Formats: sequence, structure tokens, C-alpha cells
Amino acid sequence: MGSGAEHGESELHGALRAALGDVTVLAEPAAMEPYRRDRALDPDAGVPLAVVLPESTADVQAVMRWASAHGVPVTPRGSGTGLSGGATAVEGGIVLGTERMRAIRIDVDTRMAVVQPGLLNAEVKAAAAAHGLWYPPDPASFEICSIGGNAATNAGGLCCVKYGVTADYVLGAEVVLADGRAVALGGPRLKDVAGLSMLALFVGSEGTLGVITELTLRLLPAPPPARTVVAWFGSTERAAGAVVAIASRVRPSMLEYMDRLSVNAVEDVLGMGLRRDAAALVVARSDDQHPDGAEIAAMLRAFADHGALEAFEAEPAAGERFAQARRMAIPAVERLGPLLMEDVGVPLPMLADLITGVEAIAAARGVAIAFIAHAGDGNTHPLIVDDPGDPGHAARARLAYGEVMELAIRLGGTITGEHGVGRLKRPWLVDQIGEDLLGISRRVKRALDPDGILNPGVIFEADDGPA
Amino acid sequence: MGSGAEHGESELHGALRAALGDVTVLAEPAAMEPYRRDRALDPDAGVPLAVVLPESTADVQAVMRWASAHGVPVTPRGSGTGLSGGATAVEGGIVLGTERMRAIRIDVDTRMAVVQPGLLNAEVKAAAAAHGLWYPPDPASFEICSIGGNAATNAGGLCCVKYGVTADYVLGAEVVLADGRAVALGGPRLKDVAGLSMLALFVGSEGTLGVITELTLRLLPAPPPARTVVAWFGSTERAAGAVVAIASRVRPSMLEYMDRLSVNAVEDVLGMGLRRDAAALVVARSDDQHPDGAEIAAMLRAFADHGALEAFEAEPAAGERFAQARRMAIPAVERLGPLLMEDVGVPLPMLADLITGVEAIAAARGVAIAFIAHAGDGNTHPLIVDDPGDPGHAARARLAYGEVMELAIRLGGTITGEHGVGRLKRPWLVDQIGEDLLGISRRVKRALDPDGILNPGVIFEADDGPA
Repeated sequence: MGSGAEHGESELHGALRAALGDVTVLAEPAAMEPYRRDRALDPDAGVPLAVVLPESTADVQAVMRWASAHGVPVTPRGSGTGLSGGATAVEGGIVLGTERMRAIRIDVDTRMAVVQPGLLNAEVKAAAAAHGLWYPPDPASFEICSIGGNAATNAGGLCCVKYGVTADYVLGAEVVLADGRAVALGGPRLKDVAGLSMLALFVGSEGTLGVITELTLRLLPAPPPARTVVAWFGSTERAAGAVVAIASRVRPSMLEYMDRLSVNAVEDVLGMGLRRDAAALVVARSDDQHPDGAEIAAMLRAFADHGALEAFEAEPAAGERFAQARRMAIPAVERLGPLLMEDVGVPLPMLADLITGVEAIAAARGVAIAFIAHAGDGNTHPLIVDDPGDPGHAARARLAYGEVMELAIRLGGTITGEHGVGRLKRPWLVDQIGEDLLGISRRVKRALDPDGILNPGVIFEADDGPA
Repeated sequence: MGSGAEHGESELHGALRAALGDVTVLAEPAAMEPYRRDRALDPDAGVPLAVVLPESTADVQAVMRWASAHGVPVTPRGSGTGLSGGATAVEGGIVLGTERMRAIRIDVDTRMAVVQPGLLNAEVKAAAAAHGLWYPPDPASFEICSIGGNAATNAGGLCCVKYGVTADYVLGAEVVLADGRAVALGGPRLKDVAGLSMLALFVGSEGTLGVITELTLRLLPAPPPARTVVAWFGSTERAAGAVVAIASRVRPSMLEYMDRLSVNAVEDVLGMGLRRDAAALVVARSDDQHPDGAEIAAMLRAFADHGALEAFEAEPAAGERFAQARRMAIPAVERLGPLLMEDVGVPLPMLADLITGVEAIAAARGVAIAFIAHAGDGNTHPLIVDDPGDPGHAARARLAYGEVMELAIRLGGTITGEHGVGRLKRPWLVDQIGEDLLGISRRVKRALDPDGILNPGVIFEADDGPA
């Protein structure tokens, strides 16, 4: 490695092009620029040797064989919507973008989709829906995030509270290893325990173990219709209490939380009449089909029991507007300033402590933190709003960013519920999982990528590998 | 190693007892005998050095530290109901039985159970039910199999077709590594993507990577009531076609299959009026609560479309009797002779080919094979009935056993859907997953158990490790 783009079209470029044949290779700085960072906008992103855009498994194998032979690091990249810096270019490395790998095949009889990694989540959903089927996982970015990236990060979303995360839908994968070999993990079988669960290990490995070149996904029949209930609270703790009560008694298909700051930011954009005075908004859905409506009743009772200012079932159209308000939260808060986006999770009973603890951090550091959450599964997104006009602010925001993760760990939680560790959260990983688990994880990483060329710096320190 | 029980109370025993303090150590051959084999009754089981019965994580750590220091292999053992020889004693090794690790704590707010591994699946279910909660995974052996064994094999069951397998319910685990260190994997968090998915790797690893000492399990609210439909078919292919049609359109909470031989064996025992003349019985359940009963209607329509001799919705009590008939199948067929139990799975559209292929193998080898299946997820249990009175029979039954696995592999299937590879199916594993995947799996095994002391001979060849 070490041959950065400053060399222009070097001998190394020539060798790469020769090895890759028809595969698109970008080497001009301007052409590579959009591929250097994901949405985490890591300021330390390197200038890669090249960006390659394979179209087939064989193409990816050729890239990995070449990179392996030359000791060049490879950053696998989906559509670049990652929020933890998991797709940050390495100086002199190769960015392997999967955007041209877009084939999909739906098998109605087995309710499965076989997809290449570059297809967007929304495109998978649409292809399934065309057959009356449903691919549930729904990251808020589902319209722009790739299905390969979803599997690489084990992405979550809003419906996970009832329908599970990406891992629950990945039945099989084809992955290309560091040395260029392609292996099939799992397959179109609903139950398969033959050998170690290598498939489950690869899902969520953030490109550190191999490059996903194909996924076999489980689909469900079309989703049942859902009813929406909404509650406004005067206190964040009471809202959290209602969330815990609901999640412990019924199976909501959505259970989301927004605080005052995020509600006001959304109201600024949408002007839909949201209550600017309330401390928190909870939006819940039930798709239980029992005619007695017991789940809806239990939700409304939990709201009342926890002192909601107001709680009601929304008509379908209004319910959809509340769900849209929740999906709009991140872009709306982003209008207030650049965001440091958290993704911390806690055991549900700790939700109120996390919320009040984050409020305390915001006050102590003098930074604004909007708090939105997939509350039903304890996965929250405190959004730290930077103020570029205030010179000391960025440093205080960074401190708050770490303190929120440390708080989550103290509460028995996780530094990342669905975005991944990437580069941004790597310094805190050991605080959560401990030296022993990090140590055996590193041994597994080395067992599969002995030269450390796959996404170095993500999850593990780049210099962890013997290479 | 090499110091077998023939030495009686040797120096090694003294050292082991001294190292383990209060932990129960069995060293008498008679006392150890019940711990030498699981239900696979492996004739090659060794005579262990000792059977240890720890009661705590610290006890297990002491065992593993001692075993590691002395290079003595350890066979983790739950309640010994495994069907693949995953808990077969190694000559001169230690059998680590978890039967005295039986604590359980239910957290109603988070709908979770924290359990030690020795508790039986049925006891976990009962403890959850006492709080109005439900632990879904239901191996047919649920009344006698341990929850730790369930996690170690990623056990399945009847409700998996809708509710998933054991892995879908394991949120956290404490495991003791080969060297005696205890690490916490996952935890009481519904979403957590911090680091490699080591938890998912350990689930289903059959005691080859560590010893599970505690599990955090996700629970659901009490199961909804279900309706049962039953169909008799004159042809196994038509029954398989109906199964595929149902599974592709709706979400049955149970979808089971029995062939003529198994139906007759059960009728011999229960005398409940099952049709002895039919080629196959399909029992399906729906717990969809929509008042239109569309799932039940779709099931009955699929039965009619595929030429059922007879199809009907059973009253609740009758429906329960049909489910019992299915659960009774293995013990009933066992009355015909010792069984070689298969656990092969195929992609659903291949189900009819698997059934007819197994029929062909039975005819060619001159052995009786009863065919029962968790048909809705393509996981089947051909039961090869041995005839001890026929001297050549056992050899032909062994040949058929391998041929059924090879058939499943040819059909794109798996040699084991829920029982595990253990020792019995190890020779066929490479045929399914290939040398490359087996190779990287072995590297992962060595990364975690470099001396190869954890359950040697299970999944991997015992001499695979450098030790």
C-alpha cells in the first residue's frame, strides 16, 4: 500500500486495471471524491488508490485477489448512508462499491428474495410487494440505503420491535473472502444448523470479514393493516414509563418516541399542528388483527396510567402523518446544525434513566441534544446538534458524544443498536464488551483476514492485524 | 490425556478434586455410565476420566482452567437428549454436565428470562407462563431437553415455521471459554450491533467454542389461540404440494407431515381412529386472529386444490389430539425397532422430491423409513427403522442414512435442520458446506479453542486442532 492517488495513474493503477479487465475503475480524484466517506463524514478519510465498481461476484473476487496479492486495504461500500464511518476510504486503499450489483429474483413459493448487495432496501421492498410479499426491515433511510449495507451492519428500523432486525431475514449469503475465494453461507432453507453459524457471524461484521456479493432474504406475506395511537406527555419520564408498560404487555408493530426539541424541529418543517408545548410524543402501532382491539386498548390504558396530557387513536391518514413526522425527525433536526448522531440502546427499564441522563449531559456541556427513539426496543438516537458559530462547541459536542455512550454502558446498554461501530464508535467498543470479548473477536477477525486488508480501522484498530 | 477411568481414583482424579473444591466429581464407572452418551447412543463413546456437575459459572471456570492446564478434553452436556452424538464422552476426558445449573429469573417488564443452562425447555416455558409470557421454541423433546442444549444446537421445533428457532430468542449468553475465562455475549437488549456477532456464532456451536453458563432469552406475550386443520392425502407428492402452497401464502403456526408408516405406528399406540389407508397426513395450525379466518380458508383451499382425500377443521380438542399424534410419532415408530433418525432439510419446493427420493432409497436398500416432517419449513425427519433380527440390515440402514443426506444435499438442502452435526453427521458436513467454508470454520474454532479441548470430534475432526 502507500501508493496514494497523488501519484495519478501509476503503475499500480495499470496493474489493477489489467487484473480487473472490464470492471469499472475510477482513479481521478474528482471521480473518487463521492466515494471517500459515508454520511458520518469522517474528516480523516483517506484518498484511495482507486474506486472499483464490480458488477458480479467474479469481479469482486478479482478485486480481492489483487488487493490480497498487493496488500492493499479494501473498504466495501454500499450506498454510503452509514452513520458510523464504516465506509471510510483508507489512504491508498481500494473502495469497493457495490452500486452496480443490482440483480434481484423473487421466489414466491419459498417467499424468498435472492439479491445482489447494491439494490436499495426500498427496491427490495418494492420487488417483494409486486408479488404480494413483504421485506420488513425498515431503516429510516430505507429509500437510499443498500441491502448489502443493511446486512453488513445488521440494520434495524421502526418495525423491528415486532418484526426483528436484518439478521432475522438473512437466510443465506455469498461472501468473498479477503483472499478472493467465494463461499456460500446458509441458503434457501428456513432451518439449517450444519456447522458453525458463519452466516450469523458475517451479518453485522461491517465489511471486516468479507464482501457480501449475494443475499437470500426471507419474505413475509403482505403486512397486515395497522392502527396508530398517539400520546403527548408533559414529562419525558412519564412517556418512557408508558413505553415500557406497552412493550411489556403487547407486541406493538411500532413504538416511537420524540422529545420537545425534535417535535418542534419537525413542526417547523411540516406545520402539521404538532404540540410544541409537550415534553414528549409517543407514536405506537398495533397490527394485531383480533377484533377485540385489545392491543390498542392496552396502549391507550398505558398512556392514561402514565399521565399522558392527551392520548388518542389516530385515523389512518393522521396516523400515517405521525409516522412521517417521526421519519422526518433527523432531517428536520439537521436544519438546526450539523449532527453528531448517537445510536445507543439500553434495557427497556433503563429508558427513562437514559433520557434524563442525556438531558443532564446536554445541560452540563451546553449543547442541544434532540432525543428520538425506536423506544419499544430501547434503541435511541440522541442527536447532538453542533453550532458551527460557537468555536468551543464542536469540542463540547464531542465530549457529550462520548459521555452519552458511557452513560448507555453504565445503564447496561450498547453504544450502537443498529448503525454499527464503524470508526466513530470504535474507541468505546472495549468499554462495552470488555477486553476478553474484544480479544477473541480480534482472533476471529485474524482467522478470516490474516493480513488485515478488509476495512481496516472499522470495529478493530487498523494495526491490530499482523500485516 | 490418556488417563482413562480404568485407573480408578488416580492421581489425576485427586488433582481434579483438589482443583474443583466442592464441585461434584463422579469417577466410578457405574456413576459415569449414564453420562457417556446422548440419545444418539454412539457406540464409540469413550470412558471419561470424570463427570463433573458444576453449579455455578465459577465452577465451570474451574473445570475449564484445570482441563486447559492438563490438556484434557471436555464434553459439555445438557440433559443428554441430543440426537447427533454432540454429547459423546471422550476417552479420558471430562464430561461437564450442566444439570445442577437450574436458576431462572423472569423479568416481566422486559419480557426476558435469565436462565442457567441446566433448566429444561419445559421448565422455562412454565416459568414464563406463570407470568403470562411465552417462550416459543418447542423441540418435540421439550419436556426433557435442556435450555443450554437448545442454545448449543440452535434447536427448532414445531412452532418455528412461524416463530423462529432458538437463535431468534437468545439475546445474551455468558460463556466460559476453553481457557476458563467467562465472557458476556449480547445482553438484555433487543438491538445491539456492537462488534462482531459472537453471540450468534456461539449459538449452535455444539459446545465446540465454549460452555454456555447463562442465557438471556426473549419472551413473547402468551400465545394466541390457534385453530387446527387436518388433511389426509392419497399421495405423498400431493401432500407436499399442499404444504408448499400453504407456506407460500399464509403464516401457519404449525405445519406438520406424517407418512403412512408413522401414522400406522401412532395409531397402534393411541388407537384414536387415524386413517391407516392414507399415504400422508398434514396437520396445520393458524393463530392469526383476524375474524375473517382467511388463513384457515386458504389452508383448506390448498388441501382441496391438491386433491386431499379429506380435509377439515378440527374442533380444539380434536386438533390437540392430532398435534399429540404428531409428537408421538418418534416414540411410536421406535417401537418398530431401533431408529437411525435423520434431520435433513430442503428448500420447500424440493419437499416432494425429498419424500419420493427417500421412498426410493428405502426400497433400494430394503429398509423401512418412516417420514415425518416440520414440513412448513422443509425440515424433515426420515426415521430409518433398524431390524436387529436381520444380520445385514444394520449395514444397509447405515448406507441409507448417508444416502438420505446426500439426497438432501443434491436437492440444495441441509444434512441437519435442528439436531446438529455432532459426531454422527460429521462425515457429510463437508459435502454440504464445502472445503472452503469448513476451512474457515475450522480457523474460527482454532482461534477460540487453540488446544482443541472443547468437544473434540463434534462438527470438526478431533485431530483438526494443533494439539
